Amino acid sequence: MEVGEEDVRVRLRSTERDEIMNRKAPCFGVSELKSWSFWRAGIVEFVATFLYLYISLLTIMAVKKSTDYGDILCSPECLQAIAWASGGTIFALVYCFSAISGFHVAFWKLSGHGFNRFLVLVPNPLDLCAICGAAVVKAFNKTRYELLHGGANLANYESEFIGMFFEMFGTFVLLYAVFSATDAKRNAIDSLVPVLSPLPVGFAVFLVHMAATPLSQTGINPARSLATAIIYGKKEAWEDQWIYWIGPLIGTLFAALYYQIVLRPKPFKSRA
Amino acid sequence: MEVGEEDVRVRLRSTERDEIMNRKAPCFGVSELKSWSFWRAGIVEFVATFLYLYISLLTIMAVKKSTDYGDILCSPECLQAIAWASGGTIFALVYCFSAISGFHVAFWKLSGHGFNRFLVLVPNPLDLCAICGAAVVKAFNKTRYELLHGGANLANYESEFIGMFFEMFGTFVLLYAVFSATDAKRNAIDSLVPVLSPLPVGFAVFLVHMAATPLSQTGINPARSLATAIIYGKKEAWEDQWIYWIGPLIGTLFAALYYQIVLRPKPFKSRA
Amino acid sequence: MEVGEEDVRVRLRSTERDEIMNRKAPCFGVSELKSWSFWRAGIVEFVATFLYLYISLLTIMAVKKSTDYGDILCSPECLQAIAWASGGTIFALVYCFSAISGFHVAFWKLSGHGFNRFLVLVPNPLDLCAICGAAVVKAFNKTRYELLHGGANLANYESEFIGMFFEMFGTFVLLYAVFSATDAKRNAIDSLVPVLSPLPVGFAVFLVHMAATPLSQTGINPARSLATAIIYGKKEAWEDQWIYWIGPLIGTLFAALYYQIVLRPKPFKSRA
Amino acid sequence: MEVGEEDVRVRLRSTERDEIMNRKAPCFGVSELKSWSFWRAGIVEFVATFLYLYISLLTIMAVKKSTDYGDILCSPECLQAIAWASGGTIFALVYCFSAISGFHVAFWKLSGHGFNRFLVLVPNPLDLCAICGAAVVKAFNKTRYELLHGGANLANYESEFIGMFFEMFGTFVLLYAVFSATDAKRNAIDSLVPVLSPLPVGFAVFLVHMAATPLSQTGINPARSLATAIIYGKKEAWEDQWIYWIGPLIGTLFAALYYQIVLRPKPFKSRA
Repeated sequence: MEVGEEDVRVRLRSTERDEIMNRKAPCFGVSELKSWSFWRAGIVEFVATFLYLYISLLTIMAVKKSTDYGDILCSPECLQAIAWASGGTIFALVYCFSAISGFHVAFWKLSGHGFNRFLVLVPNPLDLCAICGAAVVKAFNKTRYELLHGGANLANYESEFIGMFFEMFGTFVLLYAVFSATDAKRNAIDSLVPVLSPLPVGFAVFLVHMAATPLSQTGINPARSLATAIIYGKKEAWEDQWIYWIGPLIGTLFAALYYQIVLRPKPFKSRA
Repeated sequence: MEVGEEDVRVRLRSTERDEIMNRKAPCFGVSELKSWSFWRAGIVEFVATFLYLYISLLTIMAVKKSTDYGDILCSPECLQAIAWASGGTIFALVYCFSAISGFHVAFWKLSGHGFNRFLVLVPNPLDLCAICGAAVVKAFNKTRYELLHGGANLANYESEFIGMFFEMFGTFVLLYAVFSATDAKRNAIDSLVPVLSPLPVGFAVFLVHMAATPLSQTGINPARSLATAIIYGKKEAWEDQWIYWIGPLIGTLFAALYYQIVLRPKPFKSRA
Repeated sequence: MEVGEEDVRVRLRSTERDEIMNRKAPCFGVSELKSWSFWRAGIVEFVATFLYLYISLLTIMAVKKSTDYGDILCSPECLQAIAWASGGTIFALVYCFSAISGFHVAFWKLSGHGFNRFLVLVPNPLDLCAICGAAVVKAFNKTRYELLHGGANLANYESEFIGMFFEMFGTFVLLYAVFSATDAKRNAIDSLVPVLSPLPVGFAVFLVHMAATPLSQTGINPARSLATAIIYGKKEAWEDQWIYWIGPLIGTLFAALYYQIVLRPKPFKSRA
Repeated sequence: MEVGEEDVRVRLRSTERDEIMNRKAPCFGVSELKSWSFWRAGIVEFVATFLYLYISLLTIMAVKKSTDYGDILCSPECLQAIAWASGGTIFALVYCFSAISGFHVAFWKLSGHGFNRFLVLVPNPLDLCAICGAAVVKAFNKTRYELLHGGANLANYESEFIGMFFEMFGTFVLLYAVFSATDAKRNAIDSLVPVLSPLPVGFAVFLVHMAATPLSQTGINPARSLATAIIYGKKEAWEDQWIYWIGPLIGTLFAALYYQIVLRPKPFKSRA
C-alpha cells in the first residue's frame, strides 16, 4: 500500500496549493503585495461581498411588502424567498471563491485565524464592498428602497437583549457549520468529505434566516448591518446597530472556542 | 494494479478512523470515559440535538399562524417552510456531525446498534439537550410560544390510531433512507456513493413533514415530542404523547428488521 | 502510471458488482429465483413504488384545496409543494435504491433494457405496490381523499390531445435526464460524474411537475395513473386514463430512440 | 508516490476526452462535419435550448397571474416558482449536457472561447431551438399565452437604463459563477471540486431571477428574449428588445475580462 493513505494528503499539503489558495499568507508582509494571488484574493473578496449585499438586498426589495415592516411576522413565502436567496448566495460564493481567497466576506471565517487577527480586521476595508453593494441597490431601485427602509437591520422585537441573543446564536450556528464542515480531522480521514461542504454552510444561512428573521431581522454579519445603515442613513438604522455588532462578536467568540477546544484543528497531535 | 481496488477501503477500515468516529465504542466501559473522542461525541450530540429543536421550533413560531391550529390543513407555504427547515437542519447536522458522534440526535440511528441497546437508551440523557432547545425558544419568544402551543405535538386528527400509524410510517421512511443511504454493501462497491448520503436523509425528513404534518403533526422523534411537552407543560400536550412514542418505536422496529433481513449489513457473508 | 486510468473502472466492471446490483439479471430464468439478490430487488422495488405513491398522494392531500379542482391553475405555492415532494421522493428513491434493484419504480427505466422487455413488463406486477400505496392513503385519510378525487389523474384541459402531448413530453424529459445523467460514456471518462446523478433526475421530476401540472396533471407514469384510478374507482377517473398510457408510451419511445441513436450506450465502439 | 499527484489529471488531459467533449473543436473545419460527436453536440444543444424555453415558459404560464403584469412586484411565491424552475432547468441541463456539447444554450459560455468567436456566433442558429420551444408553448396553451404576453421580456420599470443595468449585472453574475466554478486552476489543485459545479451555476440563475425579475424581468439570454418576442409577435415585445441584447453583451464582456485577467485560465503559466 504505497499510495492508499497518503496519496490525497500529500497533494493537499503541497506549498503550491497554499500559495494559490492564499491561506497561509503572512499577516502583514511587504513581499505579499507583489504577488498576484494576493491581489486576486482581494478582487475576489470585493466581488463576493458586493454580490452578497446586492442579491440579498434586491431579493428583500422584490418580495417584502412594505406592510410587513413592524409586524412580528413577514409572510411565510416572503421569509422563504429571503432565506433561499441568502443561503443560495452564500452557497454559490463559498463554492466559487473559498479556494481563491479564503472567503472572508466581511470577517466570518477570520476567527479561524486566531483572535488577534480577528480584532485587527473587524474595522476592515471589506466593508467598502458591502457599501458599494447597498449603494447600487439604492441607486437603481429608489422607491422601494425607501419604502422598505433600505433593508437595514431595524429592531422590531420587544427587548434589545433578545435581538442580540438571536444575532449571537445565528452567528454561532453559521460558524459552527463552517468549522464542522471543514474540520481538518475529517478531511484527513476521508478525502471525499469536503466535496459537499459549501452545501451545509449555505443551508446554515438558510436555516438561521428561517428561524431568526422575525426576531432579530438576521444580520449575523456586522459588515452587512453597517453598510446598509450607512447607505440608508436615517437615524432609526443606527439605534440598534450595536446589537448587530455585539451579537455576532460574542457568537464568533463561542464558535472560536468550540473550534479550538472541541474540534482541535491540529490533526493527530497526540499521536505525533 | 497494486492500488485500485484496495486503496480506499484499506484506509476506511483503519482503527484510527474507528476511534475518531467513535462508532465501535464499547457500550459501557470505564476506559472510554478517559478518551477525548468520547467526550467530544457527547458535546457534539448535545449541540446537534439542541440545534434541531431550536431551529425547527423557531421556524414553526416564525411561519405558523395561530389560526392554523386545529385546522386539518396549515397553508401550503407554511407547510413548506417547516418541512424545509426540518429537513435542512437534519441535512446540515448529519453532514457536520455524523463522522464525529455517529449522530444519534435522540435515538434515531440506535436501531442499527441492535435492539438491546435501543431499549436501554430510549430514556436517554440526550433528551436533556432537546429540553434545553425548547426552553430557550420559550424563554425568548414568549407571546408566540403560548399562541402556538409551544410547537408541541398535539393530536388534531379524527382517530388516535391514524396519528400513530403516520408516526410509525414516518419514522420507518426516515430510517429506511438512513439505512439504504449508508448500506455497507454499496459503500464497499463504490466508494463515491456515501458523498451525497446526508442529502437523501435530509430529504426524507422534508418528505415526511410534507406528507404527514396535517395528519399527525410529524413528531417522528420521541425526544422531540417529550421535550416540547415538558417545556410547554399544559395537560393537552400529554394527552396524545403516547402516539409519539409507540408510533416511532414500531416504525424503528420495522426499519431494524429491514436492515437486518433485507440489507444484511454484514457484507459478503455468503462469499467468505 | 500503473493506476491512473484503470483503477476505478476495473473495480466497476467486476462481476461481483453486477450480481449485487442485479443489472445483468437474465430476463426469465429459474436459477435466478434461488438468488437472494433477486428477491431483495423485488422487496426494494415494492417499497420504493409504495413510497412514491404514499408520499406524493399524501402531499397532494395536504396542500391542495378542493376549490383548486377544475381550475386550470392551482396556486403557485400548492404547485411548488407537490413538485418538491414528487421530485424529492424520486431523488431519495433513486439514490437509495437504484444500486440494489435498478430502480424500475413502475417501468421508467425499462426502455433502457430494450423494447421487447418493455412491452412484456408494462402490465407489470409492480402496479400492485402502487395500488397498495394509494389504498393506504385512502384508508387513513378518507374525507380529504374523496374531496380531492383521490389524487387521480383527471383531465382538466381543453382538448385531450393537449393532455396527451404534455404527458408524452414530460416522460421524455424525465427519461432524457435519466439517460444523460447515467450515460456510460461520461462515466467512463470521469468516474466522479455519477456521484450527483440522482439530483438531475429528481430535478427533472420537479420541473415536469412545475411545467405540466396545470395542463395534464402530470402522471408521467402509467402505474401511478392506473393505481390511483383503481383505488378511487369512480367513472371520471377512467375517462382520460388512456392519455396517461399513450402519452408516456410515446415519450418513452422517443427517449429510447435518443438513447440508442444519439447517446449510443456501447462505449468506445468505433474505437475497439 | 508514483501515483498521487498525477493520476487524476493525466486521465483528464487525454485527447480522447477532448474529442468526446467537443471542447477543442476547431472553429470552422470541414473535417468536423464528418464526426459523429459534432452532430451529437448539435442535437444535444438543440434539445437543451428547446427544453430551457419549454420548461421556463410553461412554468410562467402555470404560476403567474395575469394581474401581476405591469405591477412592479409579482407575488413572492410566483417569483420563487419561476426562479426554481429556471435555476433547476439550468442545473439539470448543465449536468446532463455540458460534457457532450460544451453547453452553449444560446451563447452563454461562448465568451470563454474568445471574443472573436463570440461576435460571430451571436446571431447563432441555436435561436431556432429557442423559437421552437416558445412555439410549442404557444401552440398548446393559447389562452394563457396571450394573457401573459407570451412570457416575453417586456419592460415594466421606470427607466430603460435601469432595465439594461440589471440585465448586464445578471449576465455577469451568471458567467462569473460559471467561470469560477470551472476554473482550471482549482480543478488542477483538487480534482473533486468540479463534481458539484452544476449546482452553483443553477443557483446563480435562481438568484438572478430572485433579485432582478421585478426590475428587468430577467432575460439574461438574448436568444430567449428574441425567441419569445418573435413568437409573441406583438409590437410591445420589440420596444425594449435592445435592453436584452445590450445588457447581456456588456455583462458578458465584463465576465470575459474577469476570466482573462483575474482567473487567468492558463494554469501555472508563470511556473512553466
